Amino acid sequence: MTEQTNQNGATSLVQTLVAGGVDVCFSNPGTSEMHFVAALDRVDGMSCVLCLFEGVATGAADGWARMTGRPGLTLLHLGPGLGNGLANLHNARKAGTSIVNVVGEHTTQHLAYDAPLTSDTEGVARPMSHWVRTGRDSRGIAADGAAAITAARTACPAGPGQIATLILPADTAWGPGSAPVVAAEPPPRKSADASLMARAVAALGKGAETLIFLGADAVRAAGLELAGAIAARTGASMMGRTSLSRIERGAGRVNLPRLPYPLDVSLETLAPYRSIVLVGAPDPVAFFGYPGRPSRLAPDHAEIIPLADGTHDVLAVLAELAEAVGARAADAPRLAYDPPPLPRGALTAESATAAVAAMMPEGTIIVDESITSGRYSSAMTQNAAPHDWLQITGGSIGIGPPMALGAAVAAPARKVINLQADGSAMYTFQALWSQARIRANVLTIIWANRSYAILTGELTAVGASNPGRKALDMLSLDNPALDWVSLAKGMGVPGIRAESAEAFTAALRAGLAENGPFLIEAVI
Amino acid sequence: MTEQTNQNGATSLVQTLVAGGVDVCFSNPGTSEMHFVAALDRVDGMSCVLCLFEGVATGAADGWARMTGRPGLTLLHLGPGLGNGLANLHNARKAGTSIVNVVGEHTTQHLAYDAPLTSDTEGVARPMSHWVRTGRDSRGIAADGAAAITAARTACPAGPGQIATLILPADTAWGPGSAPVVAAEPPPRKSADASLMARAVAALGKGAETLIFLGADAVRAAGLELAGAIAARTGASMMGRTSLSRIERGAGRVNLPRLPYPLDVSLETLAPYRSIVLVGAPDPVAFFGYPGRPSRLAPDHAEIIPLADGTHDVLAVLAELAEAVGARAADAPRLAYDPPPLPRGALTAESATAAVAAMMPEGTIIVDESITSGRYSSAMTQNAAPHDWLQITGGSIGIGPPMALGAAVAAPARKVINLQADGSAMYTFQALWSQARIRANVLTIIWANRSYAILTGELTAVGASNPGRKALDMLSLDNPALDWVSLAKGMGVPGIRAESAEAFTAALRAGLAENGPFLIEAVI
Repeated sequence: MTEQTNQNGATSLVQTLVAGGVDVCFSNPGTSEMHFVAALDRVDGMSCVLCLFEGVATGAADGWARMTGRPGLTLLHLGPGLGNGLANLHNARKAGTSIVNVVGEHTTQHLAYDAPLTSDTEGVARPMSHWVRTGRDSRGIAADGAAAITAARTACPAGPGQIATLILPADTAWGPGSAPVVAAEPPPRKSADASLMARAVAALGKGAETLIFLGADAVRAAGLELAGAIAARTGASMMGRTSLSRIERGAGRVNLPRLPYPLDVSLETLAPYRSIVLVGAPDPVAFFGYPGRPSRLAPDHAEIIPLADGTHDVLAVLAELAEAVGARAADAPRLAYDPPPLPRGALTAESATAAVAAMMPEGTIIVDESITSGRYSSAMTQNAAPHDWLQITGGSIGIGPPMALGAAVAAPARKVINLQADGSAMYTFQALWSQARIRANVLTIIWANRSYAILTGELTAVGASNPGRKALDMLSLDNPALDWVSLAKGMGVPGIRAESAEAFTAALRAGLAENGPFLIEAVI
Repeated sequence: MTEQTNQNGATSLVQTLVAGGVDVCFSNPGTSEMHFVAALDRVDGMSCVLCLFEGVATGAADGWARMTGRPGLTLLHLGPGLGNGLANLHNARKAGTSIVNVVGEHTTQHLAYDAPLTSDTEGVARPMSHWVRTGRDSRGIAADGAAAITAARTACPAGPGQIATLILPADTAWGPGSAPVVAAEPPPRKSADASLMARAVAALGKGAETLIFLGADAVRAAGLELAGAIAARTGASMMGRTSLSRIERGAGRVNLPRLPYPLDVSLETLAPYRSIVLVGAPDPVAFFGYPGRPSRLAPDHAEIIPLADGTHDVLAVLAELAEAVGARAADAPRLAYDPPPLPRGALTAESATAAVAAMMPEGTIIVDESITSGRYSSAMTQNAAPHDWLQITGGSIGIGPPMALGAAVAAPARKVINLQADGSAMYTFQALWSQARIRANVLTIIWANRSYAILTGELTAVGASNPGRKALDMLSLDNPALDWVSLAKGMGVPGIRAESAEAFTAALRAGLAENGPFLIEAVI
C-alpha cells in the first residue's frame, strides 16, 4: 500500500520535526520504533546518532539544545526505555532546556493486553515532562508532533524551554499519515512587571547592598554585558546561580561569580545583601536540607525582588533595567586574557585545571561535571580564551559524557572538553562509544579521585557522625580502581593516564590535537 | 544527642529490615541517604553491595530475591536515582519478584523549595511499584519499613512478590526512631476455585487436546514434577511462558518446553490445543503487536481455563489437580544427563552454547539475556547438569550482569554463568565493577554479534520495508566494535576473547576455574 510505505504517520512526524528545526535525533530504538527508524531514510534533513543507553540520548539532546537553542530530540523505547532517560531529562527540566522525546509504544490494540513490555508510559513520562501526549491516530500524529515542538519551545520558570514527551503507538507510525504540520510559535516571553521594575531600580539605588542574581539565559554574553554595566553603574553586585545551563565566559566577556555550593559558604556569601533582584533565577535555595539549618539562602531580612524568571524575556528586562539606571552595555568591565601558567609537579584538580585554562583554544565548550574536583575551575578559567561553560543543572549525575556528545554534534567546528568526575562518569559512560562512532571532537578528562568524594563531606554535614567501615565502603571507588584508559579503549576511544602535571600537559596537548574523541585519566 | 546518633529512624529501619530477612542492600546512595548508610555500621546483619549505577542495584536485588525467595533491597537516591532503576524494576514487576526499594528524599522541610534535586519521587515510583509510601516521621519509619516488607512479600498475578517503594525523607532517618517493628505476614496464597478445577480436570480428560501452561513458581522443580506427572497421566502437554523468572532444569528434572518468541511460531505451537489450563501464567499474549496480526496467541476456539495465577498457591493447586487425575509426582519423566559433545571449528551461538552445556557444573545458575543468540540454548542445555535458569522477564534489556551479581551474592557456593547479548550488556555493564569488588563467582559470556540483531527481524516483521542506510545504522554496533575484554579490564575483571570453538572451550575452562568474576567475549 503506497500510503503506508510512503506517507505513513512516522514519515509525517519526521517531516514535521525537520520542518520545525528539530533535526538531530539521539536514538535508542526498539521494535515499536521501527517505522520511525525506517522513515529516517525517506525524509531528508534528519540526522541520527545511535546511543547505547537512553540516558546518553537524553543528556546528548540536552547538550545539543543548549548549544543550538532548538529542541533536542530523542527516540526511546517504551516505558522502561524512557525510564532510563529520566535522570538526564530531570537535569534538562531544571535547566529549562527544550526537548522533544518520541517514545515508541505498543500498537493501540496490543495495549489492552499485559504484554511483557507493557507499562504506564505516560506515568513514567509525567514527573520529568512539562507536556505529555499519546498519539491517537496516524493521521493526527504530525499535528501531535507540531504541538510537541511548540510545547518544547515554550519558556518555563527555569529557562527558555520545556520537556515535551510524545508517545507514539506503533499503529500511529505505520498507519496512513497526513501532510507535515507547521508548529505554532510559542507564546512570547513576558516583559517585566512595572512595579517590580520600580522596586528593582530603587534597590539598585542603594548600591553595594543589592545583588543582581542571574540564571537562565541571562548568563549568556549579552545578558552578562547588561548586568555588568548595571552593576558597574550602581555599585551593586552580580552573581549567578550555583548551577547554570550555559555561561559565555572567558577573555572579553563579563565575569560572573557563582553562588558557592557548600551551605555555610553560600549563607556567608549572601549575608551582606539587603535586596536581591532575581533575573532568570529563583530565590536562592540550598542544594540539600540539613538538620536545623535553613533551606533558603538569602538572609531573612533581605528584600527579594522577583523581577524576571525564565518565562520573561530576560535580555529585554535587563536592557530596560540598564536604561532605567543609565547604564550602557558597552561600559561593562571585560575580562583580560590572562590564563594561569602551565603547572609543574604534582597533579591535582587545581594544577590540571590550570593546564586546561592555559591551553584550551578559543571557542572551547566546557562540559563541567567535575563535582568536588571543580572547586577551582571557575576562578581559574575566567581569564582563559573565550568559551562556553555547560553545567549539571539538576544534580542528577551522569550528564557529562552525553552532554559533551550533544554539544559536539551541535558545534562540530569547536573543541568540547568534558571535565568529568569519575563516580559520575560511570552512569553514562556508554556515550564514549557514540563519540567514537561519529568522531565527535570531545576531549574527556576524568578526575580520578576514586571516591564519591562529595559524600564524605555530606556524611558529616548531615550529622551522621563516626562513619564505620561499611559506611565508608559505600563512598569509595578504589577497590578495584577503575581503569579509564581501558574503558575508553573498549569503546573505541584512545586515551592516556596522567599522574604528574607534566604528563597531564603532554596528554592535553595530544588530546587537543586529536580531531575526534580522546580521554585523559587524571589521577588526582 | 544520644537518641539521634543511636536509635534514630534510620537505625530502626535497618533493624526492621534485617529482622524481616531483608539483609542484603544493593546500594547507590547519595547525600539524602547518609544516615541510612551510617546506620549500617550500627546494626548487625545487613550486608551492603555498592553499585555504580541504580539499574545495577535493582537488577541485582531481583536476582538475589529470585534465588533466596526473600525481598531484595535497594538503596537509591531521590527521584532521578530511582528513575535509573526503573527498567530493571519493570523486569522484576513482570517476574513477580519481591523487592523493597528505600529511596532517599530531601528532608520534609526542604521539599517545599524547588531545589535542584527536587522531583515528584512518588510519581517516578508509581509506574513500576505495587506499593509506594513516603515516610512521615522518624518514629513511624520502622513501621513503614515493616509495611513495605509485607507488601513486597504479597503475591500478585505475576508471581509470589511485589515491588514496594519506601521513600525516606532525610528527617525521618535522622530524627528519633522507634524500636524495630516485626513485619506482618502477607495474606496467604489462594487455593483453586472448585468450578475451575472441575473444568481443568474435564479438559485434561481430553488428553492431547489440552495444554497446561505454566508460569510463576510453578516452574520450579516441585511444580514441574507435578505438572509432568499430570501430563504423563493424561496425555496432555505442558509448556512454560516464553520468559520465566526461574526454572529448575537439567538432568534429573522434568523438561519444560517454552512458548517460542516469534509470532508465527508461537501461533503454530498453540494452534493444536482446544483447552489451555493456566497455572501461574496468563492467557498467552504476543510480545509485540504487528500490523493486522493477533495479540492473543491461543486459537480463538480454545477454551482458556484460568486455574491459578501468581496469587494462588500454585504448588497446592498442581497437587490438587494431580490428585484429581490420579497422577503422582514421582511418576513424572526425568531428564537424563546427556550433554552435547564439545564443539570444534567455527564459533557460533550454537557451538558456544554446546560447550557451556557440556562443561557447566552441577548447581550452576544461568542468567540468560542472550536475546537472539539464545535461540538454541534451551534445547541444548536441557540434558546438562541440574541448574537454575533465570531470564529477562519484562523485555527491558540490561538485566543480565546485575542479575548475575545478585544471584552470586545469594548463592556464593555456586557458579553463575551470564549468557549475555552484547547490545543489552551495555545498559548495565557497571555491574562488573561490583562483581570484581566482592569477587562474585560470575562468568560472563558476551555474545558479540555486534548488532541489535533482534531489530533486524523486527524491522521486517512490522512491515517497515526496504530499510535504508540510516535505518540500518540504528541497528548495528560494529562501528566501532566494542572491545569487551578491555571494558572488563577497566572494571577489574579478567577476560579472554574467543573466535573459535576450541578457543572458547579453553576460555570456558579458565573461567569456570576462576573463583571470582571472569568474562569471555565470544565473537559469533
